[in-house]
Amino acid sequence: MSQAHKLSAEQAHERLAAMPAWTLADDALSMARSYQFADFSAAFAFMTQVALAAEKANHHPEWFNVYNRVDVRLTTHDAGGLTERDLALAAVAEAAARALGGA
Amino acid sequence: MSQAHKLSAEQAHERLAAMPAWTLADDALSMARSYQFADFSAAFAFMTQVALAAEKANHHPEWFNVYNRVDVRLTTHDAGGLTERDLALAAVAEAAARALGGA
Amino acid sequence: MSQAHKLSAEQAHERLAAMPAWTLADDALSMARSYQFADFSAAFAFMTQVALAAEKANHHPEWFNVYNRVDVRLTTHDAGGLTERDLALAAVAEAAARALGGA
Amino acid sequence: MSQAHKLSAEQAHERLAAMPAWTLADDALSMARSYQFADFSAAFAFMTQVALAAEKANHHPEWFNVYNRVDVRLTTHDAGGLTERDLALAAVAEAAARALGGA
Repeated sequence: MSQAHKLSAEQAHERLAAMPAWTLADDALSMARSYQFADFSAAFAFMTQVALAAEKANHHPEWFNVYNRVDVRLTTHDAGGLTERDLALAAVAEAAARALGGA
Repeated sequence: MSQAHKLSAEQAHERLAAMPAWTLADDALSMARSYQFADFSAAFAFMTQVALAAEKANHHPEWFNVYNRVDVRLTTHDAGGLTERDLALAAVAEAAARALGGA
Repeated sequence: MSQAHKLSAEQAHERLAAMPAWTLADDALSMARSYQFADFSAAFAFMTQVALAAEKANHHPEWFNVYNRVDVRLTTHDAGGLTERDLALAAVAEAAARALGGA
Repeated sequence: MSQAHKLSAEQAHERLAAMPAWTLADDALSMARSYQFADFSAAFAFMTQVALAAEKANHHPEWFNVYNRVDVRLTTHDAGGLTERDLALAAVAEAAARALGGA
């Protein structure tokens, strides 16, 4: 399906240009951002919201957490790079982080 | 300890007067409020934050959830009524709900 | 869709006969069961697993929790009664509870 | 307090010898283990249980998750190495993982 269609490097650069808090990998195959919250509780509430959306979409992040910090990396393994599914999950993460005071 | 000292009915009425969204039970032994969120994801993120605080304090709510609604009831079983522990957990719930758009 | 087709009272009785821990409501429009876990942590881990499955299926439980107890009630509001969606979520709950020591 | 007393390299080796699934870092200042679960739901339920225990103890893991895999690394920043707090959280993680089918 089109959702899992891999974005070209050019497309990935264009799309990520509108999301300055996210970093496109050098190979343009994944995108990453780090969030800081007030404490672990807010960080884990953020992770719970992203987990619910990820499970619903059957598309899961790679993420690292220590205390109030959550590093998220998104890629679509089946497509071998970035797809609309990653951008959709990034949008969920942005909204959840904004609500929970993540920056 | 003083934290688990049961509030008198008069004390409970005074304390709850400052929290108009919460309802004091007729017997002044418990307090309750209902929250509405945008969706289940926000409701469950709220529950996760309250769960973390509850486990930390070893003081847990009685709560009911259906979709975007969470009904919370607080009392201190050991004290047979309301205590500062309930007010502390209510404050956590209020802060978490505010962040997550609960009303 | 057929998943949201309401079960007749007869069908509901037949299906629930194989799930003795669940109680069919007198009107055969909902099913309920109560779980007991070792502690709040196990109860909330159970709720998290059911929440993930519920969000994925866009079909959510009505549930009440106090400490180590979780009361679950399932019905399909759109269909005005029990459907296969409730039985599917009940199966998820049973599996999660079994893993987490719920009884 | 003694709980936050840093274990010597010798002590760390002795304690970790009884936990063969965990790896002691070369500098003996942290311990790590990777868990595999059946799916993301079980992995995230595991993380929820560990999160509750971590918040209760005010001692949090460093962890990475992708789908059904959770890599946990434990150290006590305040003590500059491993302490009993890490071993206690490791025990919680082991129990939660065992219940949820992690290996």
